[in-house]
Amino acid sequence: MKALLTVVVIVSFILSGVWLYASGNGKVDYPEGYRQWVHVKSMILQEGHPLYKSFGGIHHVYANAKALEAMKAGKPYPDGSVLVFDLLEAKTENHAIVEGARKVVGVMQKDSRKFAKTAGWGFEGFKGDTRERVVKDAQTACYSCHTSQKESDYVFSTYRK
Amino acid sequence: MKALLTVVVIVSFILSGVWLYASGNGKVDYPEGYRQWVHVKSMILQEGHPLYKSFGGIHHVYANAKALEAMKAGKPYPDGSVLVFDLLEAKTENHAIVEGARKVVGVMQKDSRKFAKTAGWGFEGFKGDTRERVVKDAQTACYSCHTSQKESDYVFSTYRK
Repeated sequence: MKALLTVVVIVSFILSGVWLYASGNGKVDYPEGYRQWVHVKSMILQEGHPLYKSFGGIHHVYANAKALEAMKAGKPYPDGSVLVFDLLEAKTENHAIVEGARKVVGVMQKDSRKFAKTAGWGFEGFKGDTRERVVKDAQTACYSCHTSQKESDYVFSTYRK
Repeated sequence: MKALLTVVVIVSFILSGVWLYASGNGKVDYPEGYRQWVHVKSMILQEGHPLYKSFGGIHHVYANAKALEAMKAGKPYPDGSVLVFDLLEAKTENHAIVEGARKVVGVMQKDSRKFAKTAGWGFEGFKGDTRERVVKDAQTACYSCHTSQKESDYVFSTYRK
């Protein structure tokens, strides 16, 4: 009996370790290869815009295949959907606005178990071209504003044909 | 002898027909599905820019797989390479620049036989969301300016990581 209990404890311990590893401790994954994903739309936020301090510059939104399908169909995003908000400096040169250095790679990743507290979406920002995480509290820094878009499953962007 | 000559004439006639069909009469193809291609870079041309009249607005450059490989490697573009210059209106709203209606879908298509006169590149523009061709004379309207980029195989854009 004692031997059986020991086995149960060991197996449980291993399984919880596997679960923790697989769920990545609740962290959003860096969106590997997102520059090859489909470009959804772009926008430039300029001085005077309410979000200028955080998001000033030119941003491009990219969607992975799962997210793109949901976005085009206007359906809720399934687990595995990832959207990237790629923010670059916008430099004005000779009556043109050109792209500058990358400021942040913003990510929304859908995983209804990992991110249950924020409607299934994980939010993160990776600084410039690094893997340095910049979002301290996704609930206040990201989710609170995205709740205004609850009807489109918390996503602001729509696919621009 | 006469019969042989007749056969030669008929075969030549058929072959030239096949060639004409395959080469599409020297026209650039509409870049089907380019919105799913990789996004290379973007830029906004504003009033006062020398190219404003033709290209004012926000443009996104997309590359098909062949073109992207050559662009990243800095090598000449192989036949089959296609680059799209997708030009949209740029509208200023509340300290932001947003995308408006599509103005033109500019295309560069590499086919060294079809477009031998313009260094192997065919140039075309499709008006808005239509298939209406707008380039009257690619040699003067497009190629003459692109010759300045001979060292990069007549392409202005470089891949922005």
